[in-house]
Amino acid sequence: MPENTLQILVLHGPNLNLLGEREPEVYGHTTLEEINQELIRLGKEHSTEVRCFQSNYEGQMVDCLHEFGKSSDGILINAGALTHYGYSLHDAIVAIAKPTIEVHLSNIHSREHWRRKSVLAPACRGIIAGFGADSYYAALKLIMKMLHKTDAAA
Amino acid sequence: MPENTLQILVLHGPNLNLLGEREPEVYGHTTLEEINQELIRLGKEHSTEVRCFQSNYEGQMVDCLHEFGKSSDGILINAGALTHYGYSLHDAIVAIAKPTIEVHLSNIHSREHWRRKSVLAPACRGIIAGFGADSYYAALKLIMKMLHKTDAAA
Amino acid sequence: MPENTLQILVLHGPNLNLLGEREPEVYGHTTLEEINQELIRLGKEHSTEVRCFQSNYEGQMVDCLHEFGKSSDGILINAGALTHYGYSLHDAIVAIAKPTIEVHLSNIHSREHWRRKSVLAPACRGIIAGFGADSYYAALKLIMKMLHKTDAAA
Amino acid sequence: MPENTLQILVLHGPNLNLLGEREPEVYGHTTLEEINQELIRLGKEHSTEVRCFQSNYEGQMVDCLHEFGKSSDGILINAGALTHYGYSLHDAIVAIAKPTIEVHLSNIHSREHWRRKSVLAPACRGIIAGFGADSYYAALKLIMKMLHKTDAAA
Amino acid sequence: MPENTLQILVLHGPNLNLLGEREPEVYGHTTLEEINQELIRLGKEHSTEVRCFQSNYEGQMVDCLHEFGKSSDGILINAGALTHYGYSLHDAIVAIAKPTIEVHLSNIHSREHWRRKSVLAPACRGIIAGFGADSYYAALKLIMKMLHKTDAAA
Amino acid sequence: MPENTLQILVLHGPNLNLLGEREPEVYGHTTLEEINQELIRLGKEHSTEVRCFQSNYEGQMVDCLHEFGKSSDGILINAGALTHYGYSLHDAIVAIAKPTIEVHLSNIHSREHWRRKSVLAPACRGIIAGFGADSYYAALKLIMKMLHKTDAAA
Amino acid sequence: MPENTLQILVLHGPNLNLLGEREPEVYGHTTLEEINQELIRLGKEHSTEVRCFQSNYEGQMVDCLHEFGKSSDGILINAGALTHYGYSLHDAIVAIAKPTIEVHLSNIHSREHWRRKSVLAPACRGIIAGFGADSYYAALKLIMKMLHKTDAAA
Amino acid sequence: MPENTLQILVLHGPNLNLLGEREPEVYGHTTLEEINQELIRLGKEHSTEVRCFQSNYEGQMVDCLHEFGKSSDGILINAGALTHYGYSLHDAIVAIAKPTIEVHLSNIHSREHWRRKSVLAPACRGIIAGFGADSYYAALKLIMKMLHKTDAAA
Amino acid sequence: MPENTLQILVLHGPNLNLLGEREPEVYGHTTLEEINQELIRLGKEHSTEVRCFQSNYEGQMVDCLHEFGKSSDGILINAGALTHYGYSLHDAIVAIAKPTIEVHLSNIHSREHWRRKSVLAPACRGIIAGFGADSYYAALKLIMKMLHKTDAAA
Amino acid sequence: MPENTLQILVLHGPNLNLLGEREPEVYGHTTLEEINQELIRLGKEHSTEVRCFQSNYEGQMVDCLHEFGKSSDGILINAGALTHYGYSLHDAIVAIAKPTIEVHLSNIHSREHWRRKSVLAPACRGIIAGFGADSYYAALKLIMKMLHKTDAAA
Amino acid sequence: MPENTLQILVLHGPNLNLLGEREPEVYGHTTLEEINQELIRLGKEHSTEVRCFQSNYEGQMVDCLHEFGKSSDGILINAGALTHYGYSLHDAIVAIAKPTIEVHLSNIHSREHWRRKSVLAPACRGIIAGFGADSYYAALKLIMKMLHKTDAAA
Amino acid sequence: MPENTLQILVLHGPNLNLLGEREPEVYGHTTLEEINQELIRLGKEHSTEVRCFQSNYEGQMVDCLHEFGKSSDGILINAGALTHYGYSLHDAIVAIAKPTIEVHLSNIHSREHWRRKSVLAPACRGIIAGFGADSYYAALKLIMKMLHKTDAAA
Repeated sequence: MPENTLQILVLHGPNLNLLGEREPEVYGHTTLEEINQELIRLGKEHSTEVRCFQSNYEGQMVDCLHEFGKSSDGILINAGALTHYGYSLHDAIVAIAKPTIEVHLSNIHSREHWRRKSVLAPACRGIIAGFGADSYYAALKLIMKMLHKTDAAA
Repeated sequence: MPENTLQILVLHGPNLNLLGEREPEVYGHTTLEEINQELIRLGKEHSTEVRCFQSNYEGQMVDCLHEFGKSSDGILINAGALTHYGYSLHDAIVAIAKPTIEVHLSNIHSREHWRRKSVLAPACRGIIAGFGADSYYAALKLIMKMLHKTDAAA
Repeated sequence: MPENTLQILVLHGPNLNLLGEREPEVYGHTTLEEINQELIRLGKEHSTEVRCFQSNYEGQMVDCLHEFGKSSDGILINAGALTHYGYSLHDAIVAIAKPTIEVHLSNIHSREHWRRKSVLAPACRGIIAGFGADSYYAALKLIMKMLHKTDAAA
Repeated sequence: MPENTLQILVLHGPNLNLLGEREPEVYGHTTLEEINQELIRLGKEHSTEVRCFQSNYEGQMVDCLHEFGKSSDGILINAGALTHYGYSLHDAIVAIAKPTIEVHLSNIHSREHWRRKSVLAPACRGIIAGFGADSYYAALKLIMKMLHKTDAAA
Repeated sequence: MPENTLQILVLHGPNLNLLGEREPEVYGHTTLEEINQELIRLGKEHSTEVRCFQSNYEGQMVDCLHEFGKSSDGILINAGALTHYGYSLHDAIVAIAKPTIEVHLSNIHSREHWRRKSVLAPACRGIIAGFGADSYYAALKLIMKMLHKTDAAA
Repeated sequence: MPENTLQILVLHGPNLNLLGEREPEVYGHTTLEEINQELIRLGKEHSTEVRCFQSNYEGQMVDCLHEFGKSSDGILINAGALTHYGYSLHDAIVAIAKPTIEVHLSNIHSREHWRRKSVLAPACRGIIAGFGADSYYAALKLIMKMLHKTDAAA
Repeated sequence: MPENTLQILVLHGPNLNLLGEREPEVYGHTTLEEINQELIRLGKEHSTEVRCFQSNYEGQMVDCLHEFGKSSDGILINAGALTHYGYSLHDAIVAIAKPTIEVHLSNIHSREHWRRKSVLAPACRGIIAGFGADSYYAALKLIMKMLHKTDAAA
Repeated sequence: MPENTLQILVLHGPNLNLLGEREPEVYGHTTLEEINQELIRLGKEHSTEVRCFQSNYEGQMVDCLHEFGKSSDGILINAGALTHYGYSLHDAIVAIAKPTIEVHLSNIHSREHWRRKSVLAPACRGIIAGFGADSYYAALKLIMKMLHKTDAAA
Repeated sequence: MPENTLQILVLHGPNLNLLGEREPEVYGHTTLEEINQELIRLGKEHSTEVRCFQSNYEGQMVDCLHEFGKSSDGILINAGALTHYGYSLHDAIVAIAKPTIEVHLSNIHSREHWRRKSVLAPACRGIIAGFGADSYYAALKLIMKMLHKTDAAA
Repeated sequence: MPENTLQILVLHGPNLNLLGEREPEVYGHTTLEEINQELIRLGKEHSTEVRCFQSNYEGQMVDCLHEFGKSSDGILINAGALTHYGYSLHDAIVAIAKPTIEVHLSNIHSREHWRRKSVLAPACRGIIAGFGADSYYAALKLIMKMLHKTDAAA
Repeated sequence: MPENTLQILVLHGPNLNLLGEREPEVYGHTTLEEINQELIRLGKEHSTEVRCFQSNYEGQMVDCLHEFGKSSDGILINAGALTHYGYSLHDAIVAIAKPTIEVHLSNIHSREHWRRKSVLAPACRGIIAGFGADSYYAALKLIMKMLHKTDAAA
Repeated sequence: MPENTLQILVLHGPNLNLLGEREPEVYGHTTLEEINQELIRLGKEHSTEVRCFQSNYEGQMVDCLHEFGKSSDGILINAGALTHYGYSLHDAIVAIAKPTIEVHLSNIHSREHWRRKSVLAPACRGIIAGFGADSYYAALKLIMKMLHKTDAAA
């Protein structure tokens, strides 16, 4: 059996590159690089290759989904503020048709009114929000479990 | 050091007692009893006592939060349809003032329009939705991690 | 052939126990007991056992649907004011998955604005409203006819 | 005593002439002619003359209410899609001032959003929806009972 | 003249049992028991028997209104969060048809948006909000005065 | 100079043929025929020919505007309930491009909510509402004055 | 018979003092003084005393209604922009309880969206809008006719 | 092979008979007759019989769809202002179940707000708007192509 | 101890000068003068000077708050219809920054829709509505109690 | 060249007289008098006479616009809370037809929801908000520049 | 005469590069390259050069409109999901001021609610939607015809 | 003292590169380059370095804020149409946490409805709109003044 049987794409949206400096009382002190390293490490433990990308461009996120989404088994996406109006991302997720989980560091449902609507939600399997960097780690574990199940079933 | 240093209250709302029989294509085949057993087992592994309750009455859920919430360190709540109009539950969670996570089996954001609004969200730390029984297990792990951190920090 | 081949559950919601005293100019003078007796009598005429329950608790109505719904062939429900916000009842009716008819004494569509929306409607086969106690009797006849047809077809 | 002591007007609106062919999975296989014959037969059993009309024109339905409504004791109306915007029909029913029942073959409250609002409802005594052709038959029985009661009371 | 010529029912809704502990910066430090004792004492001063009940169940509040409302001359109700969606309580107050005053500890009109709508208001004579425990005491004095006037007038 | 230098078209919409019988407490006791006669008489006094039509069909009202509107100098229209949804009438008035006055017997702005919106208003010069039959007479005088002014100016 | 049997109050609101200069393409060239003189002259012809007031203050308009409204038999009011938010004027008209007609120079229903709602309408008998100064003259004639009728009837 | 293998129904709604005279700056100078002749000619070129109807009555348009729709292979409909509220037409198109294209002379989406909503759209395959008479010609070509493809595929 | 240790400003808004004559079935028979006298008397009993003002001008009410508010310890305000749109009053209350109670004679929450929103509420400590003149007396007692408490605490 | 070639009207609305005392954390410590003096001084530097007025009355602000607006070349207006509902002011600005700039001390767009809508905006050339007293000074400079340009161009 | 007298810019938005693979049941099996080739071929037949671009970036689409729009005679744009929120594209189309046609493969008006609003529509001449790749071909023919007409007229 | 003590970032959004050509009747004839030169010159006069960037990409604007925002003392941003939906820009401004002023050439509050909402406003200190290029110059002066004050205070 090959070492990495699963490929997971992790996509971070606008302003997430500032993680660790931007409003730490809301988003915590961990940097995006630290999160990515932990995700890669966690993946390796379960024979999973994790590829991480960040972009402040909706267009680049769509490109990335097109380029890497098809060769991935599942997707974690934290689209930042694009969560609330990035319908092109919605369409890209639907087009790629891979299990996708929506991830948020903070609980978007308890913040400004406009953060409560996710235009990506109808295209995603599930959502994890409010646990800081742990939102990502839990999401990775859940999607690996979900995909292994499907695999076993197939 | 005593064996169980954390107390977690798990509260299931209306119709969740039917789990395993009700619309299995939406909610899966696992029964509530099986979920509870797994949560208790998972808790034990981390020196945590998990207490589980189910009720079809909003009033009884409020009673339960009053009675057991204060002696708990954290709360997992899946309020079923009460998620969308149970403001008394919202007030009870605020009153108890313990870290609370909102749990859903299915992705409420991709179903009927009225399921997209959670009146509990502003009172909760985070949300996990869309992973079936795994939503509960991930939530338990996350709240245990969250509470241990706080503990370590204190 | 056994005497009662059909089982019908009749569920009355909040304040309906006051029937006959409460606002008789809106709801008429017949008491709930009289309505129940007539429903039972009508059922017997068609080899149908009618079981009637009233509760002022949404939770108890959900319990009742769980306990008696599965052994019933059809359900009549007048949820009183819960018609307009009782989403847990909606979910219970969907979970039980038996033909259900929504019954109202008065024409809810010609009263206060908030009475015009029924959250139960999407889970019900039909609605009868505006005929006082006759709303129930007609609903019983219609569901018996509907079920016998299905039976004959099967 | 004369044979037919009651006169009932039955008014069918746009597209109901297609009954039996149009979307049978929603509206059933019975034709409008068959429904009319059954209504007339049912009426005869209770000394009631039933007169049936269908029109695809709101104006003709208003004309019909003016011409036959005054000599009728009660009215059954299924206004089809006009239910949702035919305010002229609303005004005609109010002007005629005879007990009127709103009838629908399907449960309009569980279909498209725009079908949930009835502009006729405030002018009607009651509503029956969701029982196919049986909606009409039950409505006829209910209005005959309602009128005989009033008659007895007078 | 008999000692207690007036009977007043005081009904407290969800979470009010926590009074004194829950968010004291919003609701004050007085406990519900202390409020009840003061209400009873105040009543006695004016030959009025005050009966107090608290419940976290909307159904039980409806039951209580049915059981004690009819033998009461007036009602004070603080329905907690049910104020904003408890239409069954609204109907129960209308059904009992006794002068009813809506009471709130805090000024609901200056808090979260959803607390600004009271579904009970159309069924109540008046409202007092924002004075902590004094809201109750003032309400009791006002309803006693209101009822004695009516009494004098009759 | 020819006797009748102005041609005025008066168009009455649905249910106005019932005038004098329909809800006289709202619409008065004068019949439509009496109003038409008075309008014709009033017109003659000012060398104006008044032509009156009534229809319960929106289509026929559009036809009438097409057929007689072009040979008229001005139009009075009371579209009944079509005022609130008859956009085809709106378009016909715009197409005919003759000065048009909206007339109502009752004050539509103080009745049901849906009567407050006129879809014809943007196509009309003015509105007179609330004076019973006098609404028509005043409208005729005003349009004759308006047209004579324009005439003099030209 | 005394000379002036009727007293009519004419109330002009904010900015109407500019009539004749302000946006003549919308409001015409006649000045407010000319309108007032014509109203007084018209009144004299029918044994009616017309008293005219203009104010840019909502408070002064309320004062004026209080001071002169009670000794008047009818009121014409053009409240200018206060038409759309002057609820105190609404209450003053209701309090004075004299027949009141709403007058507008332009057709408010075909202008900006916010001009389409009149908060005075529910307190007024009728409305005339869109005829420039003639709106006032027609309104005066209509209210004199209306009052003489009532008088004759009494 | 027979000469005309396809039958296309073209239905024009209210006020379209005025084409060429009505607001030519919006709708152009071509008359409806000229459009119909060109459609018939175009059809002949592709072995298609085109039948054209115009009516100012929604009812007559429904009748026409019932009478000719079933013997047609496809439908072009420009419902004029009925586009925005003619739900009976919507139901008729659904009932006939033939490929239908919505046609508009002007770009309805860039005009008044109420013209932006088409109640027919959910029942139609496609829409062409904004090209004057060319909207019709392009629609005819597209539906012929669409139908021939389907034909070839079958 | 000085005789009057507290200064209370009582501010009555538009139309309240008509109290006792205006719609007595809604507002009662007591005049504003009688209410003011009783408030002054009540104040004296508790070493409090009560100063009362009425104005039909929002501007004058703002002036009054500026002039007397600063030398007052607390404010009672019944802004009449300005309650619903008088944002300048809201700002004045916030600017003065003295404890303010909103008073209404009738229960504004059970009347016309537009009376349900108070723009003053977010600037006020509490509300009393629905008790006629007693609303004022209770408000005075409550604010005196509230202020004495604060005093004692300081 | 005459000394003051430009006349600028500066109009301050409700509560702005309190400037310097009212909520200094929001509005700063400068008084209105100081602002006016600086505006007059700034004007003099550029041969401009600045006239300043403050009123808590919308009516007086309208009067002031009428009296001084016509002899002014430009207007600065900070209407305070009237910004959000003072449609009479809107109409007065339109009627005066002089270049007008909307000024605010704080950024109204980042405060309460109701402060985000300016009913004056459609009548104004520009807006400056959020710079405290500097908002006024910048506005004066901008309008002087704007007017001198126009002047030069003419 | 040069060979290509017209220049047409064709702009495809986000996700359209996936055409042929993405949800073929909605969007068909033709690839974007095939569509572009056919558009170029079709253009050549009518002496028209067609230039095609696709981008997943709104910014790049704006750039492209700036760079190539000015040298084009007309534009076809299918902005994908940006149709519904890409106001920058709207502004770019207005700035370029060349005839532009909105193209969609599917009938956006019969899909999700958010797809029904086009923010580009007010800047476009017309719309073609629902015909798959044929939407583009028909749009090209229509704009060539439109431009040749204009050309002939000039 | 060093020459340039302040660093100001000026950010221009989509379509602003067209300034001077695009709709000059709305936006004026000055080019963006001319505005940038004037801003740099103005800055130099006050020992301030001004850096200007334009992009049609929201992502690039976010990048630019990240890269240059931190080394700047203040920011001027004219986000073009992104003002109305660019929530990622909002988040970037909040993250950078430097005083930011929103600039617009035209008065966005008096144009299309969708231009009235700024999603950036809650993150900005102030707004200047409606003065063409002068909006920028005034904004620069105001932010330099604001920053020098803060500096002096520190």
